[in-house]
Order: sequence, then C-alpha cells, then structure tokens
Amino acid sequence: MVRPPFDASEYQQRLTAVRQELNRRGLDLLVVTDVANQNYLTAYDGWSFYTPQAVIIPLSGEPYWVGRAMDAAGGKLTAWMSQDHIVGYPEDHVQQADRHPMDWVAAWMARNGWGSARIGIELESYYYSPKAHSRLTAGLPNARFIEADLLVNHIRAKKSAAEIDYMRKAARIVESAMRKAYEIISPGVRECDVIAEIYATQVGGQTGYAGDVTALPPTILAGENASAPHILWGERRFGAEETVALELAGACRHYHAGLARTLQLGRAPSKVVDLAQAVLEGMEAVVERIRPGVSAEDVHGAWQAIIGRYGLKKESRIGYAMGIGYPPDWGEHTISLRPGDRSILEPGNTVHCILGMWMEGWGLEVSETILVSEQGAECLTQFPRELHRK
Amino acid sequence: MVRPPFDASEYQQRLTAVRQELNRRGLDLLVVTDVANQNYLTAYDGWSFYTPQAVIIPLSGEPYWVGRAMDAAGGKLTAWMSQDHIVGYPEDHVQQADRHPMDWVAAWMARNGWGSARIGIELESYYYSPKAHSRLTAGLPNARFIEADLLVNHIRAKKSAAEIDYMRKAARIVESAMRKAYEIISPGVRECDVIAEIYATQVGGQTGYAGDVTALPPTILAGENASAPHILWGERRFGAEETVALELAGACRHYHAGLARTLQLGRAPSKVVDLAQAVLEGMEAVVERIRPGVSAEDVHGAWQAIIGRYGLKKESRIGYAMGIGYPPDWGEHTISLRPGDRSILEPGNTVHCILGMWMEGWGLEVSETILVSEQGAECLTQFPRELHRK
Repeated sequence: MVRPPFDASEYQQRLTAVRQELNRRGLDLLVVTDVANQNYLTAYDGWSFYTPQAVIIPLSGEPYWVGRAMDAAGGKLTAWMSQDHIVGYPEDHVQQADRHPMDWVAAWMARNGWGSARIGIELESYYYSPKAHSRLTAGLPNARFIEADLLVNHIRAKKSAAEIDYMRKAARIVESAMRKAYEIISPGVRECDVIAEIYATQVGGQTGYAGDVTALPPTILAGENASAPHILWGERRFGAEETVALELAGACRHYHAGLARTLQLGRAPSKVVDLAQAVLEGMEAVVERIRPGVSAEDVHGAWQAIIGRYGLKKESRIGYAMGIGYPPDWGEHTISLRPGDRSILEPGNTVHCILGMWMEGWGLEVSETILVSEQGAECLTQFPRELHRK
Repeated sequence: MVRPPFDASEYQQRLTAVRQELNRRGLDLLVVTDVANQNYLTAYDGWSFYTPQAVIIPLSGEPYWVGRAMDAAGGKLTAWMSQDHIVGYPEDHVQQADRHPMDWVAAWMARNGWGSARIGIELESYYYSPKAHSRLTAGLPNARFIEADLLVNHIRAKKSAAEIDYMRKAARIVESAMRKAYEIISPGVRECDVIAEIYATQVGGQTGYAGDVTALPPTILAGENASAPHILWGERRFGAEETVALELAGACRHYHAGLARTLQLGRAPSKVVDLAQAVLEGMEAVVERIRPGVSAEDVHGAWQAIIGRYGLKKESRIGYAMGIGYPPDWGEHTISLRPGDRSILEPGNTVHCILGMWMEGWGLEVSETILVSEQGAECLTQFPRELHRK
C-alpha cells in the first residue's frame, strides 16, 4: 500500500463538496473521466490512462475506480477505498475492434442499479474519447447523461494547507531545476543535455521527497525556436549571443509549481533589456494586485496598464489556476487571468502567472506561482526575477 | 525551421497511402485527431495538444494543421507544409465557457468548402474529447462524419528504412538507459534517483542525436509495488533482497524502442529463477516464430506453448506494434500479439514483445523490440536477456 498524500478526512471533505454540488444539480452520481480529478478524489495514481478509466462518485458510500484489470493492482495499492471499490474490466476488452471497455463499464453500472440514473459526466477531459462516450451512453439507454465539466475543478481551485505544503515542495524542486539550467546553459551546449539535467533534478526531488515528471515538459525557447512557446528540444547548440527563455515546473505528489525565467548569453540586445523591464514591472503590478476579493480580470488589468504604457500587446491570458497535473496539462481550467474572467480570488487559490512574450525570432518569459493568502499574494518560489546574464 | 525527420518524398508516400484508403471508402477528407498520426503525416511537433488540434487531409494538395494561434508559430517551424496551411484559431477560444475551438474549426471548414463533405474522423484518440466532437459536428450540420479510427495507424505499421533508422537510434538510447539503471540500483538507493538518471539518459540521447521523453514514463516494479505494472516511482528505497523489473524505452524523433529487463538484488528466490527461465525460453520461441507471413496469434501461440509447459498463465497480450509515440502511449493500436489477432506479419513491422509476469507481491519482465525482416526477426536492442544479479 502506497500511503495516500492526504488524510482520510481531507478526502471526505472533497467528496462532501462534490456531493453538495451533485445534489444541487439533481444528479445521482458523477462519472469522473479527468485523470487529475480522479487522483484528487481517490488518490489513485498510475500511468494507466492510455486505456479508458473512470472514477464514479455515488451520492453516498465510497467512490469506485474502474479501469483495466491489469491496473486494478495499482488501484489497490494507491487509492484509499476498500478493495471491492477497485473494479477491473477484462483484458479481452483492451483495444479490440468488436468490443470496448465502456461496453463493459455500462453493463457493470447497470448491474449497480444506475441504469436509469441522472449521471453527471465530464466530457472535456483528455483521455475520454468520443467513441468511449458513445459506447457508454449506448450501453445505458435509459440513463440521462448531463455534462459536468469543471464541477470538480472548481472545488480544486481552493487549496487546503496540506495541498499548499506539496506545492511548496514542488517550488523547492523547480528552484533547483532552474539553478541547474542556469549553471549548464552556455554557448555550444546542446539543448537536450540541459533538458536532461532538468528532468533529473525534477524527478530526483529533494531530500525527504521524490519529484514527479511534470505535466508539461520543460521548454527552452532560444534561437530560431524562440517564437514557438510549446516546441520541444533537439540537438541545437546555444549560440554565443542568445536570449534563452525557460519554462519549468516542479511536481510533488502531482502538485505543481511553475517557474519561468530568461537568461541572456553574451551581449543583451536593447530590445531584450527593454522588454525585460516592462515584463518585470508587469509582474510586480500583478503580485501587488492579487489579494482576496479581486477578480481575475482585474489582475489582468494591472498587467495591461503597465505594458500598454510600453506600447506592448499580449493576446493570450497571463495566468491560470494550477495544482494537481497529469500530462498533458498542469492548468486546472478554471480561473484564467484575462479580460472577461470575473472569478473572485479567495485565500487558497493558486495561480501560475506566466508573462510570455514570444516575438518574431526571440522571446522572453517570466512567471510566478502565486498563492492567494489572507493578506494578499505570496510567490511560492523564491528566485531572482531579472534577466540573468551569463 | 526545424528540419523534418524525413524527406519530402516520404511524406508524399504516406499521403498517397492515406488517400488511396480515403478513395476506397468514398471519403472526401480525413480529420486526424491522433497526435502521433499528425506527426507522421506533417512532421508537426510540439507539446500543444492540451488545447484541441487537428490535421486535415484533403484528397489533393497539402494537409492543413489547425491548432491554437499561439502554436501556429511552432507549426510553421516544424511542419513541412506551406505557411498558409498552418491555421491558428484565436486565443479567445481557449478554455472558455461560451465558445469552443471546434466551433471555429467547423466554421473554417465550412468556408473551405467542406460543409457537405463526407468526413472521415478519428474518434478514439487521446486529446479529442466528446465535447470537441459534438461542437465540430454541430457546426457542420450538413457534413457526414464517418469513423476512421486506425486508418493511418495501419499504414504506420509497415516502417520504411528511414523510420527503422530512428528506431535503431532509440534502441541505442534505451540500451544506455538500462545500463545506467543496472549501475545505480542497489539496496538503500531511492527509486526516484534511479528514474532521474534514466530520464537524463533518455533525453540526452547520444552523440549525434537527441532523445525524446518517452510516451510512457520509465517504470520500476519492485518490493510492494511489483504487482502493479503502471505504478509510478516514489521515495521508496530498494531492499537488500529484491527482484526489480524495469520497463524502459528510448525515443528519437518520437520513434520508440522498448526494453524490459529484470534485476535481482541479493539472493534470488527459486520462484524467480524458475519464472525467469520460463520467460526467457518463451522469448526465444517468440523471436524464432516471428517472420513474414506468420500471424500475430501464431506468435502468441509459440509463447503459450512454452509457458503452458511450465504451468503458467498470462491474461494480457504479449506485444503490440510500436513506432511513433506521444504520451500517454507508445503502442500503435494495430497488431497485438494475442489469440484472435490474425494480422499477418510483413517486413517492416515492428513489435514490442513484452513478457510481463506480475505476480502477488513480485514480478518479472523481459521485452524485445522486434523488426520483422525479410529473413525473420531482428531484435533492435542488443542487451543480455537473463536475470541480472547484483
């Protein structure tokens, strides 16, 4: 048995919050298809989501984890529920042309008395396919399916002290990873060798705790690739005069802290120095503005006021709620720091504010993972923000 | 511009094969939602698939890549098509309650003249959600959507010489990673520190080429976790007498080679020695049986005959087609080495044969990535197969 990251009482609180919402919406149960939400509610942890799996939350009693038979062993080791709430579908349903795991899950749900239930279900999650959904609904023709995207995510937005503790550990990991990158990056070094050391630092964690692979890989934007925020590394070597933007994270028990910084090899072009000044001023304004009661769009406004003064524009949002993440994304898909998002910040919210400016052929990034505290804002990582010269 | 991994002629051959199949099925175009298939057809490469993206293959002309505006820059850098075939949907469609990227894509497709087309579409791919599909179909009410899962995957099953070359590079990477793991694993060492070094070796690649992060993470099955094939690492320390099963891969330009081996710390229990003997004999029988013209289930039969003699059973398949992989899976979802799979092997097929025996509280794994050659079978990795003693 792997010890779940949280006490039983914390999982009960999460379930209670989900059930309040199910009752409010008149739903009989919730089918959780998002892997991060599955982990949040059950502690289940395994790289098994390449075959269909779901967590089912009835209005009372323990949740069920339903997945591939081979992975039920991992369910019994990692999830907090009783063994009979870990349900494996047979191996002969895996990647077959004539049957689907969701055929089996539908039949199992019918046997469990949910054949005519009002079923809330997540329909915008990464590992739940249109085919899986059509087979589940075909197998339960008398049930009613009601979209429940983000129901759990909105509950996740407010972190407990124990969750914040994991995010602080993640922050220590990403500080180490960024220090390692600063140390190694030099003209002539291959990108892949820097990313290799970043991975080693992320996964090795710290004394006392392991790290996880982060939900997005480390990115290094430099040279010809600097305009493309999500490009992957290669064998390219750093040039003698290059602006290198790094977006990294650390993860502990899948809780993330993000950190982006920019490093200058050789002479810094004045356009880089000028942009760095605007972005740093923007970040100060953002951190200053964040406190309980302020809206997400207000925070964006603080940034907008600064860069507007510099004659700059940024189309994409400047931040999002962050916490548990599994590939491919560490965002929680709730709060976004952008115009039109009227979410009101409250203590326990955690947002990754990423000021990424991807210009034609070069780019600059600075980010902070920010905890909304009773008093205002707390940056979870402690790492010098300015353009690093080397 | 990042150099695509293959010559233009190779991409043209792939397109031709896809179009033959589209014509055979009477389809006007193909919407490719699977990220590995997108890379196979366009060379597009980026960690952008956490927002919806698709590749569209019309019956003539270049394919289109359609994704988030922010990632069009990466499309222009990595995909081989003309710049006007890289199409970005606006940032204000990302993770919004009142609109969806697929609303925009549907409108764009209608403008492109496909409003009443017969559209083949992949419905069982990771990262294409039921919501995305319902928005796309709602936006194109006069189009007809026809499931085209695995159409591209079946074409991928037969590798070209250039593809095999990347798999050989991946094989060199995974050999290095396994050697590194053998070197470090010792009683008292933390699992996470071994995984850290494995990642560093995978990503650093070799002299002359970088490595990619593999589509599944490295797994170490030891001690209490040995029964669970897809569990992730933690801070657990290896014991003085432990059987440690490792399933790793290497990846080069996203082409994978897998390698599983088992290591014994301290005294080997006789049950482990006996199982190792059966599994090694089984692997020899599999490699012996593989050659052009033999069916996937015949290969499984060769394994079955050996372990049956030892009184053993294995419920899950013993292998699958492997090539390009993006998280969460490196399997191609076509050929499976199991009863009932009548796929006939042909030269250029590559299968990862994984003999994983997960027992109660311990486990053993041995795998080979096998190329079907004109003559028979070639194991792409060269690494001693027997139980490694340390």
